[in-house]
Amino acid sequence: MTTPSRRDLANAIRFLAADAVQAANSGHPGMPMGMADIAEVLWNDYLSHNPGNPGWFNRDRFVLSNGHGSMLQYALLHLSGYDLPIEQLRNFRQLESMTPGHPENFMTPGVETTTGPLGQGFANAVGFALAEKILARRFNRPEFDIVDHRTWVFMGDGCLMEGISHEAASLAGTLGLGKLVAFWDDNNISIDGEVQGWFTDDTPARFEAYGWRVIRNVDGHDADEVKTAIDTALKHDDKPVLVCCRTTIGFGSPAKAGKESSHGAPLGKDEITATREALGWNHDAFEIPQAIRDGWRANNAGTVREDQWNTLFDKYAARHPELAAELTRRSHGELPAGFGEAADAYIAKLQEEGPSVASRKASQMALDAYGPLLPELIGGSADLAGSNLTIWKGSRDVNSEDAGANYIYFGVREFAMTAISNGLALHGGFLPYDATFLVFSDYARNAVRMSALMGAHAIHVYTHDSIGLGEDGPTHQPIEHLASLRHIPKNDVWRPCDAVESAVAWKAAIERDDGPSCLVFSRQTLPHQSRSDAQLRDIARGAYVLRDSDGDPELILLATGSEVGLAMDAAAKLGDKVRVVSMPSTTVFDRQPAGYRETVLPDRCRRRIAIEAGVTDFWRKYVGLDGAVVGIDSFGASAPAEKLFEHFGFTVDKVVEAANSLR
Amino acid sequence: MTTPSRRDLANAIRFLAADAVQAANSGHPGMPMGMADIAEVLWNDYLSHNPGNPGWFNRDRFVLSNGHGSMLQYALLHLSGYDLPIEQLRNFRQLESMTPGHPENFMTPGVETTTGPLGQGFANAVGFALAEKILARRFNRPEFDIVDHRTWVFMGDGCLMEGISHEAASLAGTLGLGKLVAFWDDNNISIDGEVQGWFTDDTPARFEAYGWRVIRNVDGHDADEVKTAIDTALKHDDKPVLVCCRTTIGFGSPAKAGKESSHGAPLGKDEITATREALGWNHDAFEIPQAIRDGWRANNAGTVREDQWNTLFDKYAARHPELAAELTRRSHGELPAGFGEAADAYIAKLQEEGPSVASRKASQMALDAYGPLLPELIGGSADLAGSNLTIWKGSRDVNSEDAGANYIYFGVREFAMTAISNGLALHGGFLPYDATFLVFSDYARNAVRMSALMGAHAIHVYTHDSIGLGEDGPTHQPIEHLASLRHIPKNDVWRPCDAVESAVAWKAAIERDDGPSCLVFSRQTLPHQSRSDAQLRDIARGAYVLRDSDGDPELILLATGSEVGLAMDAAAKLGDKVRVVSMPSTTVFDRQPAGYRETVLPDRCRRRIAIEAGVTDFWRKYVGLDGAVVGIDSFGASAPAEKLFEHFGFTVDKVVEAANSLR
Repeated sequence: MTTPSRRDLANAIRFLAADAVQAANSGHPGMPMGMADIAEVLWNDYLSHNPGNPGWFNRDRFVLSNGHGSMLQYALLHLSGYDLPIEQLRNFRQLESMTPGHPENFMTPGVETTTGPLGQGFANAVGFALAEKILARRFNRPEFDIVDHRTWVFMGDGCLMEGISHEAASLAGTLGLGKLVAFWDDNNISIDGEVQGWFTDDTPARFEAYGWRVIRNVDGHDADEVKTAIDTALKHDDKPVLVCCRTTIGFGSPAKAGKESSHGAPLGKDEITATREALGWNHDAFEIPQAIRDGWRANNAGTVREDQWNTLFDKYAARHPELAAELTRRSHGELPAGFGEAADAYIAKLQEEGPSVASRKASQMALDAYGPLLPELIGGSADLAGSNLTIWKGSRDVNSEDAGANYIYFGVREFAMTAISNGLALHGGFLPYDATFLVFSDYARNAVRMSALMGAHAIHVYTHDSIGLGEDGPTHQPIEHLASLRHIPKNDVWRPCDAVESAVAWKAAIERDDGPSCLVFSRQTLPHQSRSDAQLRDIARGAYVLRDSDGDPELILLATGSEVGLAMDAAAKLGDKVRVVSMPSTTVFDRQPAGYRETVLPDRCRRRIAIEAGVTDFWRKYVGLDGAVVGIDSFGASAPAEKLFEHFGFTVDKVVEAANSLR
Repeated sequence: MTTPSRRDLANAIRFLAADAVQAANSGHPGMPMGMADIAEVLWNDYLSHNPGNPGWFNRDRFVLSNGHGSMLQYALLHLSGYDLPIEQLRNFRQLESMTPGHPENFMTPGVETTTGPLGQGFANAVGFALAEKILARRFNRPEFDIVDHRTWVFMGDGCLMEGISHEAASLAGTLGLGKLVAFWDDNNISIDGEVQGWFTDDTPARFEAYGWRVIRNVDGHDADEVKTAIDTALKHDDKPVLVCCRTTIGFGSPAKAGKESSHGAPLGKDEITATREALGWNHDAFEIPQAIRDGWRANNAGTVREDQWNTLFDKYAARHPELAAELTRRSHGELPAGFGEAADAYIAKLQEEGPSVASRKASQMALDAYGPLLPELIGGSADLAGSNLTIWKGSRDVNSEDAGANYIYFGVREFAMTAISNGLALHGGFLPYDATFLVFSDYARNAVRMSALMGAHAIHVYTHDSIGLGEDGPTHQPIEHLASLRHIPKNDVWRPCDAVESAVAWKAAIERDDGPSCLVFSRQTLPHQSRSDAQLRDIARGAYVLRDSDGDPELILLATGSEVGLAMDAAAKLGDKVRVVSMPSTTVFDRQPAGYRETVLPDRCRRRIAIEAGVTDFWRKYVGLDGAVVGIDSFGASAPAEKLFEHFGFTVDKVVEAANSLR
């Protein structure tokens, strides 16, 4: 073999995938074998990247939304020259290998986003494409298309069946994300078999209805057709493009091609042998002939590409030094110098002024205070701007020509919104926030989980945080949501008790650079709390003594958010031996050193009462079996908020009663 | 006024809505004012119902998917003669009134399903329509169209933006649910304003792509056009129909019609006065002239309708007594006589035979055992049939002509699947189950919550319940999900430790008639446990002593599911003073009398260790501050399952270590 054919190049993917899945005795060979030809054309002829520097800012983003086909991506990364040695492919799906079952952005160089939960990669890709579009508008100047790259996404029938694909595609169409190209792996197969029994959409027509350009009927195994399709896709930049590729799942396998049996299990040794014969691939497992390696290797081309861009950037920096500095700072995820001090000054001022406002209003005030300092801040709400109070004075619609645009009208699309935030965060250059009612965090829940898993620096704002929202009733009243969000590993959850804690929560969420924060705010007004300087400082530790006892506490009241005021009122009635702990973030508090935690919640004081308008079970971790919890374990009801708090027992009397019930 | 015009009739809705929202000083007048004319035509000319008996089995089902417009539904129910007095409308959104902020199926006669969380009512409606279609095929006979009714659903732009609308509409198209008619309230407004900035779908084209019949461009304020559209919709029964109605939100309000300001806040007294003048409505708030009342009242017509059906049913019962008896039983939600005994016999046999299988396999065995007894059982999986093991020997595809069809290929649509289950359960005649991987309960989470809120008798099957699923890695490994599902009020969660507990869990889920159950199963094999008759009986109490200590316990190990075997092994090592409590359902256990709970977990024994491959916080409610939890508070990893259990510390040694660490 001297000059390998395109098919030969693609077959390298096929056998790396089939052999790795076989070695792991687990995985999904069918999709990589089916999409290999498309991937070969895209990666070898179009993808603008540099395998030697996966972090090059102006690279194209490639997203494998059908992430179960992870071996496709690992094969592509390995072959094109990323730092992913063949040994890692041999160790597919083994503990601590760089080749986990689904692509993980934190384990493998070149993986832009973790995929696997279907449809979310596609929505992340919409976030990537939106990031590119807004950054280009902000930073590009005549002769300097500094930000100029595409987002390519592979997706299967599963992604297209998921509701999030509707939300994301619809918004991408509205926003005219012309540098987004999606490839539909139209192989007619999902796990349960041939899709006719459960998936009969006219997908091209559906995407045209979203305002996409659709390229129909591409033979996904004909490199020329794929190439023509991509060329067509690149002719215009006004609309996102869906390339509909007919493919055969498990292509090449004599017995399993076109069948669901190739989807999620090893082909079997004999069948791999038969596939080798059928495709004329005479190489051992994990052995790639040099000519094929040469055909794939993209390091030199990548270096040239990045060097050219670096040269351009240097000239840009000379001509537009402030823009270049800002882009550099933002692309490194660094906050502006002085942000922390400015935020602290704002917080100190708030403490002094002592406004009593709804914490959602305090959130908007924090946006007004911090927003002007943070050009990377971008966000919006799922059609609840006036309720979530996510529009601040500097907000300008991204669906406009405004170069400083930073506000996204997400529409009623909680799940895609959150996944798009993840995409914006992972792209770099942005600090995204999104917002809805706390109860509808349910709609977005797996994307919040993905923020945390990926360490995406996204801020999820949830207002109307309890029965305190009143008349909208139980469908709109979160009960179990605070506890459930706190259970997501690496997810920080804040529920501030007043404007000051709200400003601290926003600051913490902005400064945290290794994961998401959920900021949970009230609909109703919350009273300002007095604090010493030390108390003010300790808010950032997640919990602190807001009112101390005279001597050792005989009773500790722990509360969050709107229940802190109640705890303070109850403490006033219960006497001098009562301590009140405000606990705006249990997740942050749990990370504090044991010594600090002991000063707040001394082990010897077991007479503890937690107060929060949410499920009681969560609080047993702080009050134990001998404490009490004033909470709510039933669904709420429709009535004015003050009636509900009384009805569900959030009163001084009930707290006193609970105190008297303790041993 | 002698013969009121259609507009007069519709105006009664408008003012009941505007005045009730004003009285409550809270609510959504815009939608009822906008859809009043459509509702008037539908309810007065088409809806087949009997206000005197909201439970009449063959009634049409009406669903207000845009549930924030609840006053539309209350006005319709009141005016047409349901038991919803005007005082209740005056008390809109007040504590314990029959008119909560969003329609609740458990509070108001004639409300079929709770709506408000956008898009879900539409998916419930797909469940209703599917129920009707399958029941008709099963029970109708020549001359006896005993099951013959329609499902009508109102939906707004918000519902259409939500991803669940895609999942539900797509499946409805595939299933050809021809007796489903949806009305799109195309008013061009959502909460953030005119929708052009965030919602530009060609919705008619989108629904045609799903295989729906679409009736375009209907003036939603022209009764004749609406009537013609409905007549057209009723001409064919092969496809679901979308009627696209252009409307003006807040119709009639001089200052607020067509504006988002009419959406979610009272119009204001002056504006209501102006609207009265504009529409020529010279009646006080909550005052409806007799002629208008007469024009709406549907009690007599309803009684005649139901009487006719009862007469037909009597003849049907004479001709087809067994079918009639089965339909009557199923429509009352009664299990077949002898089900409990048969299930107990199966459970006893399992205990004797002692198979060691994956609990997902045990779940399938339970389906094979119980399924033949339960013709009302209907269910499926979100494209994971072979993994969830939801297909049993009696499963037959509903997308066929089979009169006994009972299996739904839901496709990759977890959220709609769950909401469709809710619809099937609420319709009556069915006991639905649905299934996906436990981690993807996230995608469906708010629909699980709605099952619980509504008391819908639906069974949610979740397999691959921990890191035990192995190589698919953290995106597919649930960590926080068990705890989070248990936090949903009224939701029963079962995680059985072997085939016997799995069979008991299924039995409990089938027999529970006031809410949902989540059945959580392992991918991997679980060892059979020995039990006495008393132990066998006590499984149903949610937790029981599986291995008792010699004398009072000095240490109690609590475990669920796959960790029960580990607890038993650890106990063997830790000695005779150790008790093991198997706790397949904490939610059921918590409902047991205090006396029983004390026998299982005696208060005096505080040396307790909980073992579960999930977040540890949850277990503090049983082990307190002085116990220990062997759990996992980080995301999982991709590797073979046995390596992961060791890696994350689920070993006898770690349990022994935890025991030694206790005071």
